[in-house]
Amino acid sequence: MTKSRISRIQDSLQEDQAFYLTNLINIRYLCGFTGSNGALLITKIAATLATDSRYEVQSSQQCFDVDVVIGRNLSELLIEKEQVAEIWFESNHLSVSQLTSLTEMFPIQKFVAKMGIVEAHRQIKDQAELSIIRSACEISVAAWRMCIEQIKVGQSEREIRNNLEQNMRLLGADDVAFGSIVAAGSNSAIPHHEPTDRKVASGDFLKIDFGAKIAGYHADCTRTVVVGKAADWQVEIYQLLAAAQAAGRNTLSAQATFLAVETAVSETLNNSGHLEFFTHGLGHGVGLEIHETPFFGRGSHDKIAENTVLTIEPGIYLRDRGGVRIEDTVVVTVESYENLTDLPYELIEI
Amino acid sequence: MTKSRISRIQDSLQEDQAFYLTNLINIRYLCGFTGSNGALLITKIAATLATDSRYEVQSSQQCFDVDVVIGRNLSELLIEKEQVAEIWFESNHLSVSQLTSLTEMFPIQKFVAKMGIVEAHRQIKDQAELSIIRSACEISVAAWRMCIEQIKVGQSEREIRNNLEQNMRLLGADDVAFGSIVAAGSNSAIPHHEPTDRKVASGDFLKIDFGAKIAGYHADCTRTVVVGKAADWQVEIYQLLAAAQAAGRNTLSAQATFLAVETAVSETLNNSGHLEFFTHGLGHGVGLEIHETPFFGRGSHDKIAENTVLTIEPGIYLRDRGGVRIEDTVVVTVESYENLTDLPYELIEI
Repeated sequence: MTKSRISRIQDSLQEDQAFYLTNLINIRYLCGFTGSNGALLITKIAATLATDSRYEVQSSQQCFDVDVVIGRNLSELLIEKEQVAEIWFESNHLSVSQLTSLTEMFPIQKFVAKMGIVEAHRQIKDQAELSIIRSACEISVAAWRMCIEQIKVGQSEREIRNNLEQNMRLLGADDVAFGSIVAAGSNSAIPHHEPTDRKVASGDFLKIDFGAKIAGYHADCTRTVVVGKAADWQVEIYQLLAAAQAAGRNTLSAQATFLAVETAVSETLNNSGHLEFFTHGLGHGVGLEIHETPFFGRGSHDKIAENTVLTIEPGIYLRDRGGVRIEDTVVVTVESYENLTDLPYELIEI
Repeated sequence: MTKSRISRIQDSLQEDQAFYLTNLINIRYLCGFTGSNGALLITKIAATLATDSRYEVQSSQQCFDVDVVIGRNLSELLIEKEQVAEIWFESNHLSVSQLTSLTEMFPIQKFVAKMGIVEAHRQIKDQAELSIIRSACEISVAAWRMCIEQIKVGQSEREIRNNLEQNMRLLGADDVAFGSIVAAGSNSAIPHHEPTDRKVASGDFLKIDFGAKIAGYHADCTRTVVVGKAADWQVEIYQLLAAAQAAGRNTLSAQATFLAVETAVSETLNNSGHLEFFTHGLGHGVGLEIHETPFFGRGSHDKIAENTVLTIEPGIYLRDRGGVRIEDTVVVTVESYENLTDLPYELIEI
């Protein structure tokens, strides 16, 4: 039998230690709770979730591997009766004020800053998680194909966004993974553009960055098309960028380092003099968060672990003219990778 | 001329002090920036936003009252050249790890924990903000009316949620304010129920908690209806709850304390023996966050300031049977209040 997620955390605890968790994404991962207010205490031999009365029924239905207590002061509910000397906390999540309160309430215990313990487990997806992410990506891809058929010259970025997001919901998404980026013409040069009332015109690049959410897990995909006939400069930067994105994907495997993948992309862009127009990181982990560990862009010599889910998303952005991004969500395998967002790489004219 | 939001913050700073802000909602409020990565440094005489290259174009278009610098290490960009002795930080937002990094990078400066400074300004809405929140509420209410006409026995909670949210988008919402709660039958007894595939049946309570989002501002409204003919117990708890909600609203004014409003509601519910089934707070501020300062439920003897926008949302939840919640978003005025979510209070049978 596979070890529970909580027991894997317990393996790193001594008997006089406890881990007090406040990051709700980590709590969801460990015990299934999806409410907006909760804290989790894990000791060597037990695990308890505290939440408030709004979530009494819900927590009893959805939590696994924990006891549940209901009340107002969550830290008091969890810590007061514990006989531990040392309490770990998530230092990249707990605020300075929260730590001050805890140390005032519990002056005997020693509070110890820990970072990234649960996140490191979350990076490596199990088969159940991969199956959900695959579904989220399949819905995303199908919604994009529908959307592309529906686009007409004169529609606004917002209308296209609404259609795309409605498609995802009708196809079974719980929600969208994030506010979709629909960027037409010169707006496509803005990496994180928010859709406006700008109408799509012939000759525009149309960059769409989107994804569905299922059971808490995200999909993330970008494609860029041209409305009408592509101009030569559009064909040129599109093909350069597609080659760079392919170079990144083709370097992926559980033997490759993050740096090797980044280098493959940046060398391709540098050969044509376009590296300066690629102004953000190459990609990020995807899972219960849309952006999660690991992140490209840190020059890491670490190998990318098998069953890491991440994005490969280079872009070329020419200010006031337009931009191209191609992004896939992939699972890293021993030999290479599995692409979860199966959409065309050639330049589509719609 | 009205003072800028930043200059109101500067009024509380001395010349050798600076305020380093990391809460992106507060940053948006002060200078208009809506990106996902940024930090703001305010000194007595200047204000600078730092963000990364993804937001270079966007920040140049949307920011007011600040200079903008672009780079990777935001705190270094902002603090390194400043000659201040003391740096305030948002202690309810900055994580313990972030503070550790700051104090290591800048060992000379003294870092001082501050809480709720910008939030206190945000509580009192100006006319521009009220106008946006009014629009968000109007769209919400219109979308609910459309949705109620569309509901048929046999539709699932999720289908109704999809219709309602699509209505809000078609009516011009930028987004939904939060994932709508659509809870049928016994699910209506779960205060924060997430919509499922459960189909709506005759005799169900149908509780819908929803809102639109415009320009960053939220609306929040709940109505509960009965599918088909209401049973006597449903009429009874609905009318009790509606009376309690009205008692709360009717106590509102800039002369009333939070406690007075809470007492009006709880006395009404207590008279009929239903207080124990009201298991959450009476309401919360609404603005750039769906839940923001001020919050009911703290027994506060403070008066509610004019132009505070908040919700009044009592509920009665009978486990395994069903529940009722009625919620309005209102603006507190000198004499009473203005209701922004103008929907019926009588029990509707659909």
